[in-house]
Amino acid sequence: MKLMSYQHAGRETWGVVVGDGVADLAARTGHATLADFIASPDFQRRDALVAGLKADAALAEVAFLPVIPRPEKIVCAVRNYMDHHQEVLAAGMQRELSEQPPIFLRVWRSQTPHNGPIVRPHVSESLDWEGELAVIIGQGGRDISEADAWKHVAGYSCYNDASIREWQFHAKQIASGKNFESTGGFGPWMVTADEIEPGRELKLEVRLNGETVQSSHTGHMIFSIPKLINYASTIFTLTPGDVIATGTPAGVGWSKKPPRFMKPGDMVEVEIEGVGLLRNPVVAQD
Amino acid sequence: MKLMSYQHAGRETWGVVVGDGVADLAARTGHATLADFIASPDFQRRDALVAGLKADAALAEVAFLPVIPRPEKIVCAVRNYMDHHQEVLAAGMQRELSEQPPIFLRVWRSQTPHNGPIVRPHVSESLDWEGELAVIIGQGGRDISEADAWKHVAGYSCYNDASIREWQFHAKQIASGKNFESTGGFGPWMVTADEIEPGRELKLEVRLNGETVQSSHTGHMIFSIPKLINYASTIFTLTPGDVIATGTPAGVGWSKKPPRFMKPGDMVEVEIEGVGLLRNPVVAQD
Repeated sequence: MKLMSYQHAGRETWGVVVGDGVADLAARTGHATLADFIASPDFQRRDALVAGLKADAALAEVAFLPVIPRPEKIVCAVRNYMDHHQEVLAAGMQRELSEQPPIFLRVWRSQTPHNGPIVRPHVSESLDWEGELAVIIGQGGRDISEADAWKHVAGYSCYNDASIREWQFHAKQIASGKNFESTGGFGPWMVTADEIEPGRELKLEVRLNGETVQSSHTGHMIFSIPKLINYASTIFTLTPGDVIATGTPAGVGWSKKPPRFMKPGDMVEVEIEGVGLLRNPVVAQD
Repeated sequence: MKLMSYQHAGRETWGVVVGDGVADLAARTGHATLADFIASPDFQRRDALVAGLKADAALAEVAFLPVIPRPEKIVCAVRNYMDHHQEVLAAGMQRELSEQPPIFLRVWRSQTPHNGPIVRPHVSESLDWEGELAVIIGQGGRDISEADAWKHVAGYSCYNDASIREWQFHAKQIASGKNFESTGGFGPWMVTADEIEPGRELKLEVRLNGETVQSSHTGHMIFSIPKLINYASTIFTLTPGDVIATGTPAGVGWSKKPPRFMKPGDMVEVEIEGVGLLRNPVVAQD
């Protein structure tokens, strides 16, 4: 099942994808947001709830929102693909793998939806792509063991952890380059976890103006999804709708020779097998 | 004027400190939270709004909440005091000052109020204190210049950016050690900016069980409050109630010889001249 957040007729809502349309579930279920639905017992009986529903609107006529528009937390893994780690070393950067997952946080205001603009700020031209698999937390919890972790996954989506490299490298802390407003593409929808076998290797591709720039698969992850959930939930309580962006594979623009960055007018796509295709035009900050 | 968030008679509310009590302003102003009030035009005419009010409850009978219980963003400066930078070098850590402010993010769930517990997690005993001046944003904005920055400050509070050092040093990204649930002391209240002249040097002291462990003043800051506001607002829109924790001076437990950490049963205090005294007992995670 594909669940999505969107705006239609001036109203923020969410629903289930039916063919090339969407059926509004906010009014039908009484849950104002997709995160509220995920947090409720109704999420477990979603198949019955949506059975026989017809689309209320075509996907082409609604405005997508970030799958979870305002997650309480967005936990991002950095350096979590072996092929990306190798290209970073090849680019001459001194880095060691850590024994625990390196993470940073994004704020929800840094997100942008499917079809929404990725905004290149005034201050730098070093806007780079990072295609990632996003995990959306279902049942929350603290100190979740790796063995139990899969039970806490509500579903998956595509993330573009787009980064302002110059700001990312202002200091060792990379949060500044990773939080520019309207840079983190998140969409188009969440595919519920029942559709993707735990740990299945998913092909992940990023295309810039149609040209493939990242092509890898989730089997290259260094820290697994259960490990990331375990690690994050040791720090704080994970809550329904929290997002874990699991890191990017090889092929980022910064590591290419010469480096390549995104510029206004570009179109960037993140496609993940079995999950979907996230597409974002690049625009300049107003 | 001192404004605070608190719980009383099972209800979350906020108000103004009157003597040794607090007058509830949620019902009187129609603003559900202190952040809502700060965002409203009423904040500018606060003196008239509170004139003649009497306390509804004694401070001793209410439960403080973090000054802003759920800020949209908590931006934390790291290595922002010259005296702290020097002690870090003296402790043998290789570090360079960066030309731009190093920042990381906290999630609101990591906060704890005045009198609330700072929780030492199961996974590590390396719980350290970091007394800091917190700036609370009033009028929001993007790309705020340093010259305009003071106009965006609603007020000041005390912050204890308590850290799990072992986790902080798992990787270059320190967010993991800085976000444990119920570690970031924030309180007791916000002193409105009109009471503290912009840039005034404020004495900052941290005491552990009555013993002074940090004693410095805000004049040692490397990146000024206007610079931090300028830098953060270049990344994203600051919104009313956002918090900027401005970094800690010399005297953290980790740099002492031998290192000292907080343990269950301890009482830690952060006192800032003209702002207040934040007191937190240390407890073990359940």
